[in-house]
Amino acid sequence: MQPQQDDVVAPVPARAGSTPSQLRRHNMGVVLELLHRDGPASRSELGTATGLTRSTIADLVQDLVACGVAVESGSARPTGPGRPSAVVRARPEGAVALAVEVAVESIAVATVGLGGEVLATERVESAVDALAPAEVVDRVAAMAGPLLAQHAEGPVGVGVAVPGLVRRRDGFVHVAPNLGWQEVALASMLGRALGPGDRPLPVQVANEADLGALGELRRGAGRGVGTMVYVSGDVGIGAGLVIDGRAMLGATGYAGEAGHMLVDPGGRDCRCGARGCWETVAGEEALLRAAGIDDAPGARALALLRDRLRSGDPQAEHAVGVVGHWVGVGLGNLVNLLNPEVVVLGGHLQQLHEHLRPSLETALAARALAQPRSAAHVVPGTQGRQAQLHGAAELVLAGVLRDPVARA
Amino acid sequence: MQPQQDDVVAPVPARAGSTPSQLRRHNMGVVLELLHRDGPASRSELGTATGLTRSTIADLVQDLVACGVAVESGSARPTGPGRPSAVVRARPEGAVALAVEVAVESIAVATVGLGGEVLATERVESAVDALAPAEVVDRVAAMAGPLLAQHAEGPVGVGVAVPGLVRRRDGFVHVAPNLGWQEVALASMLGRALGPGDRPLPVQVANEADLGALGELRRGAGRGVGTMVYVSGDVGIGAGLVIDGRAMLGATGYAGEAGHMLVDPGGRDCRCGARGCWETVAGEEALLRAAGIDDAPGARALALLRDRLRSGDPQAEHAVGVVGHWVGVGLGNLVNLLNPEVVVLGGHLQQLHEHLRPSLETALAARALAQPRSAAHVVPGTQGRQAQLHGAAELVLAGVLRDPVARA
Repeated sequence: MQPQQDDVVAPVPARAGSTPSQLRRHNMGVVLELLHRDGPASRSELGTATGLTRSTIADLVQDLVACGVAVESGSARPTGPGRPSAVVRARPEGAVALAVEVAVESIAVATVGLGGEVLATERVESAVDALAPAEVVDRVAAMAGPLLAQHAEGPVGVGVAVPGLVRRRDGFVHVAPNLGWQEVALASMLGRALGPGDRPLPVQVANEADLGALGELRRGAGRGVGTMVYVSGDVGIGAGLVIDGRAMLGATGYAGEAGHMLVDPGGRDCRCGARGCWETVAGEEALLRAAGIDDAPGARALALLRDRLRSGDPQAEHAVGVVGHWVGVGLGNLVNLLNPEVVVLGGHLQQLHEHLRPSLETALAARALAQPRSAAHVVPGTQGRQAQLHGAAELVLAGVLRDPVARA
Repeated sequence: MQPQQDDVVAPVPARAGSTPSQLRRHNMGVVLELLHRDGPASRSELGTATGLTRSTIADLVQDLVACGVAVESGSARPTGPGRPSAVVRARPEGAVALAVEVAVESIAVATVGLGGEVLATERVESAVDALAPAEVVDRVAAMAGPLLAQHAEGPVGVGVAVPGLVRRRDGFVHVAPNLGWQEVALASMLGRALGPGDRPLPVQVANEADLGALGELRRGAGRGVGTMVYVSGDVGIGAGLVIDGRAMLGATGYAGEAGHMLVDPGGRDCRCGARGCWETVAGEEALLRAAGIDDAPGARALALLRDRLRSGDPQAEHAVGVVGHWVGVGLGNLVNLLNPEVVVLGGHLQQLHEHLRPSLETALAARALAQPRSAAHVVPGTQGRQAQLHGAAELVLAGVLRDPVARA
């Protein structure tokens, strides 16, 4: 997006009877996107960021307020000497997305408004891999009901994060090995379950690591970063790639399956059918197994592991040492291959980062070549499990940013 | 590049005394780039491709011809019924690049003209890793002399491919493990050696796999491809990544070090200082070792290996089976991670592709997930060792395409 060029784009012919013009609508989207991504701004800041004139900005803000997607606060914000300027901000309730995460050991739903404000959220721990897809859809619908009841207008759409290979075009899950899913038409199932019969909700489904990357890019540790790898640690491991500030999804949308890199040819069988994949040695199951914790993966098991680490349990300490080593090995491959500016760790890798860090850093230093290594900042995510929900909401809200008027 | 938008870009103010205007120069570059990349075209084809009017195209072609970078051939080319139309083509001698490849076992130089025509080329097999950088520079200068003597105007610049980590800004080689190089100011050394004292030649240096990728993208198996991985097989293995039709160099220019992915933790030490890197099991040395060939890597050793394969030598057949397996394993990692449309094999992987293929395909099918696997076409490069030279020339000629007038 190069908003500073908007003024010089050849005028788009207005469609008969349409007001404001397509150009105006486009520019409304540009301004709303700035508010959505970067937060509140004064009119003059918006002018500077877009290159649009003072009077154009005034008109656009007025239109956005009229559409209900922005508010201009009378409360003055001091900005140095001179007249304090009013602040324009996205209005969260102006467009609400329903964000859903289907993970291996939990289901989460959230309502997320413009500006990325999480209005309400709920997560239920559950062995999702023991449920049929239809049961998961029912649970999501039951969890979403009370959240959506708060919004009379209904959500603008639904975004769903799934740990699997997803065909984005129609939200079809080809395979989610750690859920035991094959060929699930998730978007259409959820659309029917969530919407009234006469108006099924539009549903977009994407890989959870891709959405985690998007969430951290927009709202967390990846803000403003050009080349980033987000590594999602769950039962499986996935990666979301960002190149030049944009999601890199590959030729057919399946990029980022870092969990299935071979790192240990003599290792364990993976649920994908191959052996010695990165997730078999760096995933949550490997960690709990090494620590001697029999509980199923999930928040409770990780809390138990953290307790044992706090009390100095030697087996737990050994486990984070071994798994940290393998995490570092895999990150070394990613750093050598992609030369990222930032590597963001999500899921259990984020939650246990302080414990994994020593052996992770040692292995990474041993594996990565010096130049790409010195360029890469390895940091825990700041959004935790919310990263996927923020990413799912961004998928949906992108449509509103493209054309705020269509929503109104 | 969106040439169809050029007509509607706000006019750029002409600098005093400059003729033609900056806008005209920009559009000349757009037309020349089409001729350079896609080959000869009629004026009407150029009009269709750029969205520029017939008379604008006529002026631009006239200017390009006047600058000596294009020719319009009077010889008619039949294009169906109606008046046969004259053909415009890039004039190779209009801008000549000196392309250089410094490999582990050979040095190559070429003069490459606009349109990608290789005017002259020479390759000398030599154990380059036994030479000091200054000796390599002297040899390049000695080889380049007779080629450059053909061009009174001199080359527009020099592009160099090196198997190492290169800081492109100033052509500084941080490390080239398989050459035994550390911290070599290659661009400035070559610039002094090649140019007369009063006018040193501009030299650009880049990683050989990145340039191989660029060469295949522009001139070979990658034409028109969006997401591509080029895998360069030499003593080492490197990768050049192409995302959305553009080179992906990473945050600081070092992306693509696929040869140093860990694939075999119990494996051999690598020259990079780590162990079990992909190139230790899939590189040319591993192949020759497994085949029982003691010769140093290079064209002669590969020819010997091909002879043995033709005669059904069991050790040679076993060697390509084992190495093909490891090649497929590494490609599986790349396919899972990047979901490319095309994987182009270069160097020994290209030359021995037919022999490596069975075990390569088996391992790739076992390692890669079905969806990214089915999207990826794995093909041998069509440019062979010329890929790196074409890529090096593209680096240099890009400057002429940006502003054809500055050259004239």
